[in-house]
Amino acid sequence: MTNDLRIGVVGAGQMGADHIARITNRISGAVVSAVVEPDPGRAAAAAANAPAAATFARVEDAIAADAVDAVLIAVPGPFHEPVLMPALEARLPILCEKPLTPDSASSWQVLEREQQLDRPHIQVGFMRRFDAEYAALRALVQSGESGELMMLRCAHRNPSVPESYTQSMLITDSVVHEFDVVPWLAGSPIRSVEVKHPRRNSLSPAHLREPILVIMELENGVLVDVEMNVSVQFGYQVATEAVFEKGLARIGQPAGLQTWRDGSFSIADHMSFTTRFAAAYDAQIQRWVNAVHGGTLVDGPNAWDGYLVALACEAGVRALEGGIVPVEAPARPAFYA
Amino acid sequence: MTNDLRIGVVGAGQMGADHIARITNRISGAVVSAVVEPDPGRAAAAAANAPAAATFARVEDAIAADAVDAVLIAVPGPFHEPVLMPALEARLPILCEKPLTPDSASSWQVLEREQQLDRPHIQVGFMRRFDAEYAALRALVQSGESGELMMLRCAHRNPSVPESYTQSMLITDSVVHEFDVVPWLAGSPIRSVEVKHPRRNSLSPAHLREPILVIMELENGVLVDVEMNVSVQFGYQVATEAVFEKGLARIGQPAGLQTWRDGSFSIADHMSFTTRFAAAYDAQIQRWVNAVHGGTLVDGPNAWDGYLVALACEAGVRALEGGIVPVEAPARPAFYA
Amino acid sequence: MTNDLRIGVVGAGQMGADHIARITNRISGAVVSAVVEPDPGRAAAAAANAPAAATFARVEDAIAADAVDAVLIAVPGPFHEPVLMPALEARLPILCEKPLTPDSASSWQVLEREQQLDRPHIQVGFMRRFDAEYAALRALVQSGESGELMMLRCAHRNPSVPESYTQSMLITDSVVHEFDVVPWLAGSPIRSVEVKHPRRNSLSPAHLREPILVIMELENGVLVDVEMNVSVQFGYQVATEAVFEKGLARIGQPAGLQTWRDGSFSIADHMSFTTRFAAAYDAQIQRWVNAVHGGTLVDGPNAWDGYLVALACEAGVRALEGGIVPVEAPARPAFYA
Amino acid sequence: MTNDLRIGVVGAGQMGADHIARITNRISGAVVSAVVEPDPGRAAAAAANAPAAATFARVEDAIAADAVDAVLIAVPGPFHEPVLMPALEARLPILCEKPLTPDSASSWQVLEREQQLDRPHIQVGFMRRFDAEYAALRALVQSGESGELMMLRCAHRNPSVPESYTQSMLITDSVVHEFDVVPWLAGSPIRSVEVKHPRRNSLSPAHLREPILVIMELENGVLVDVEMNVSVQFGYQVATEAVFEKGLARIGQPAGLQTWRDGSFSIADHMSFTTRFAAAYDAQIQRWVNAVHGGTLVDGPNAWDGYLVALACEAGVRALEGGIVPVEAPARPAFYA
Repeated sequence: MTNDLRIGVVGAGQMGADHIARITNRISGAVVSAVVEPDPGRAAAAAANAPAAATFARVEDAIAADAVDAVLIAVPGPFHEPVLMPALEARLPILCEKPLTPDSASSWQVLEREQQLDRPHIQVGFMRRFDAEYAALRALVQSGESGELMMLRCAHRNPSVPESYTQSMLITDSVVHEFDVVPWLAGSPIRSVEVKHPRRNSLSPAHLREPILVIMELENGVLVDVEMNVSVQFGYQVATEAVFEKGLARIGQPAGLQTWRDGSFSIADHMSFTTRFAAAYDAQIQRWVNAVHGGTLVDGPNAWDGYLVALACEAGVRALEGGIVPVEAPARPAFYA
Repeated sequence: MTNDLRIGVVGAGQMGADHIARITNRISGAVVSAVVEPDPGRAAAAAANAPAAATFARVEDAIAADAVDAVLIAVPGPFHEPVLMPALEARLPILCEKPLTPDSASSWQVLEREQQLDRPHIQVGFMRRFDAEYAALRALVQSGESGELMMLRCAHRNPSVPESYTQSMLITDSVVHEFDVVPWLAGSPIRSVEVKHPRRNSLSPAHLREPILVIMELENGVLVDVEMNVSVQFGYQVATEAVFEKGLARIGQPAGLQTWRDGSFSIADHMSFTTRFAAAYDAQIQRWVNAVHGGTLVDGPNAWDGYLVALACEAGVRALEGGIVPVEAPARPAFYA
Repeated sequence: MTNDLRIGVVGAGQMGADHIARITNRISGAVVSAVVEPDPGRAAAAAANAPAAATFARVEDAIAADAVDAVLIAVPGPFHEPVLMPALEARLPILCEKPLTPDSASSWQVLEREQQLDRPHIQVGFMRRFDAEYAALRALVQSGESGELMMLRCAHRNPSVPESYTQSMLITDSVVHEFDVVPWLAGSPIRSVEVKHPRRNSLSPAHLREPILVIMELENGVLVDVEMNVSVQFGYQVATEAVFEKGLARIGQPAGLQTWRDGSFSIADHMSFTTRFAAAYDAQIQRWVNAVHGGTLVDGPNAWDGYLVALACEAGVRALEGGIVPVEAPARPAFYA
Repeated sequence: MTNDLRIGVVGAGQMGADHIARITNRISGAVVSAVVEPDPGRAAAAAANAPAAATFARVEDAIAADAVDAVLIAVPGPFHEPVLMPALEARLPILCEKPLTPDSASSWQVLEREQQLDRPHIQVGFMRRFDAEYAALRALVQSGESGELMMLRCAHRNPSVPESYTQSMLITDSVVHEFDVVPWLAGSPIRSVEVKHPRRNSLSPAHLREPILVIMELENGVLVDVEMNVSVQFGYQVATEAVFEKGLARIGQPAGLQTWRDGSFSIADHMSFTTRFAAAYDAQIQRWVNAVHGGTLVDGPNAWDGYLVALACEAGVRALEGGIVPVEAPARPAFYA
């Protein structure tokens, strides 16, 4: 007799459908028991890949039907809070796709509600922390064997973005990942954010001024620059170079099948985050499921981390206009210690 | 209501324990329902990591207790046949660690028994076919975009082997993997096997004469050489270079975190197959579980493939004594078409 | 009957001795005919490796003795002007190690003197322009095949520096190379310079605050950041990543003998510019010698380029104190068109 | 007053013209004083790039005119002996392009003639010994730091060959390089040669059966396989993997500008030996010139090495017909000790 975690997946768009396929086909100890999606066509299509799932229009309905042990939120950020609140009310473990919420004020509301529970129930879906290379780099930082970390030089490159992608999404949709993973790698929060503007890419949508170079100072003095570049055409690349006192390290470099053809040696690039971070997404969900089974509920970035990222995003968006913008966070509540 | 495949894992040594952990922690749609192991201490230790498992001394007992839907055989090769036969009798799907059996005569017995069923029930655990790089290389061969394949130049290097490792195990325990994966890559069976002896490694156990260079000719004319090297100390490496008419391809090259320290750029090597092929082992079991759920029972090398490998191993062992030894297989039964 | 260019090498320190060995052993069409060095011991040691050389205490003496057809200046920067002026007076071709002079005012004096001649006679020793990888990168920029250049992300890392190395030498002795080569790569002059301070390297000499991150904006909008890092211990590395609209390029990566030992794959680093740029130094001198034989006198950065670098260095030194410092150059004289 | 070595270049075809350009433009201490070429058009074209050169129809004429201090032979192999003999008669230092002569019998005649002089005067142009990576690999073998060498796995790949290239030229024109450099790397002569035939490349000229795999055993037990492949289309590649008791090393791997475009990371291949070994050719001539100036006359493979290569080539050509063919050399004369 198995005892699978019954997960309600909220949202049946691309990200939700990916998570449904993942849980159904590759995750041990869990089953998609509910698909929450107001669009009936989408709901039915998604449920077709989740043999054990019922469909609901609202998360409250799934909860009322006692159909779920846990909730995975895969709707767009502006719709997170209306799902988070009833799920917290029902004391359900939650894996919430990034961001926690689109702004720090609403994130703070979520934090206040969560702190009425006995312990953190929310994990935020910053999947890079589950990538094997990021983990290896963090272990190297913590080992101290190359001396102290001094700089991180990051690049985040997308082949292209749709017309609907806005200037501030450079920060809130893309650099947001570095706002989570950089403090996690470096062991120190962000002190300030600044944005520089290189020559504009003529292949960008007309309303975008990008690439940008985002410069962060961390509380421990580590300096970080992030090239954020969403129209590079050639591939999808997320890379980091860590500069230590007596060493250097690099992740996100080409790997896999090597070929020689037509006068050159080549390694195929990724073209999307879905392949670059496929294993990280799997690991994230598996470890979350295991954490819920084990009772710790969270194994990864929690709501407080999500709040800090929201603060950094607000600073980053302001920094698009110029100047060095400080990131000022309140003291971390003991609840999140 | 979930419907997990109830797997009986036969053998609770290192390989069996690995599979138990894998199925319990990372495989969707399956559960370890039985641990079959005559040693009570081993059985109890293994079962501790499989919450839903009962323990049995013999596979017949687990079958009689209706405790298993499928069997995964992880005992040493000489003990495969006594597990395969009752499992076939019970019409259970079987994933059998390599080799099918230690010799072609006993493998033939297994084939004859299996052909009394309605369709193949046995998959053999040659996990390289589930490695992403091997799959990419095979796809390149099949695409024809680099012209025809002409040569494969392979290397299989282990840091060291225990004293119990014998000369013939160079073939039956190590080259055995190339005997499966090379025909799969090249789309052609093995015609002959030959062994050359380079200078002996002074760090090998005293009774071993190795490395060896194994040369295979395939029916389609592709020439293959395999450096089999089990005392290289420096790391675990399985690499293949494929030579095409107008291209080249290479798999098994260093990947992951890149570091610079003390005057050199470095990438850490694997030291064991357990890390090199960790993802392949997971993929192998997941795809087998899915195939059983889907009713095809086998998604990978079948018993016929295992028989061909047994023939090649016998030729390889004879080739250790000198000469070019042909590999002569009967026609493939329609049952395995 | 050969007609070798008779070169007077001024300065017999390490750089001068290297050039003497280079010209004597590896350069076609040239001979060291004079070593100009006031220290008699040094002069004698250097001349021992230049069979055809006489020694002189001052460059004026070598000129008066009609001992030289051309002058190579390898004394420290503050002593360049007193050699440049008499050499210009004598209308001799000059290869002057970087910098032209230590400041823009004195460089301007040199420019004014040179413009009294019929054509430029001074080449400045920015050897990176003669490195095969820098040349390939520049060709890629000029080809336009990856679209327009948008950013350059550079790193200049030294194992260590002596106690005598000062804070401003981060700019004037090290970043000085990027001040020349970046505009040459990008096809645009420097508009401004800014300096950021990462966490300090505790292995640096106590009076240094480094590494630094130097940010440059070019007139054409290209944004450049340069990690200047002189105590990295692990090796000598000069690397550039060029970010184009639809491509990426990288130079200065590990190359040469690849080894596997003790659990890792490695490529040996350089530990000094003398090996990293050995071929570039040879190519620089050979092309200069050929240019002198051919009558063009200069094949590389000229005195005007040296003046622009002096302006950038002055901005860079001011930028060490904070702020974005503009680089304002007068119009280029037709003499240097 | 300079004292350049006056070199007579014999042969003004492509190789001769390359050497003339090299000596004229990049080699210190030498000048092309004579071009020996019976074809007046070729002779004039070549001499145009050698300002100090007179032209002669025969090497005897150049010698009689006292126009040369040394001879560089760049005519095809069958014409070497008629140049070597008068040059030895005149006691001139000789750099002879490979092979010494086309067969061991004629090479023996040359050896006998040379031994009438006071010391070896002939260097043979196996330029790989002057390649930095080959030198680094040999140093690693000699250091013993990775244990004893056990195997060499070599590849020699050309984009294509002209129709005039014959089957035996696979050995005499191409593998000939490995016959020199392998014993030099491994510190042991060749004991036997064998040839295996992979699937034929359909892009080869119709009269060729290639690629071939050449297997050599060395006297010290080292086993060597060489993939000789002259129609690979994709590039020119000469690579070696050395397998040690506790390490591995590889040379000839992609290097230089790294680019990302159109979904892949790439490094441009060589397409010809002229770029792959450009620096080696320069180093070979420079070191030979220096050796002649210094009185040792030879700094590289000598005539005895050339004779051993001729023996190996004869074995290799016989091995094209099948079987393991021994290479039997007489004892090395003390003259070549």
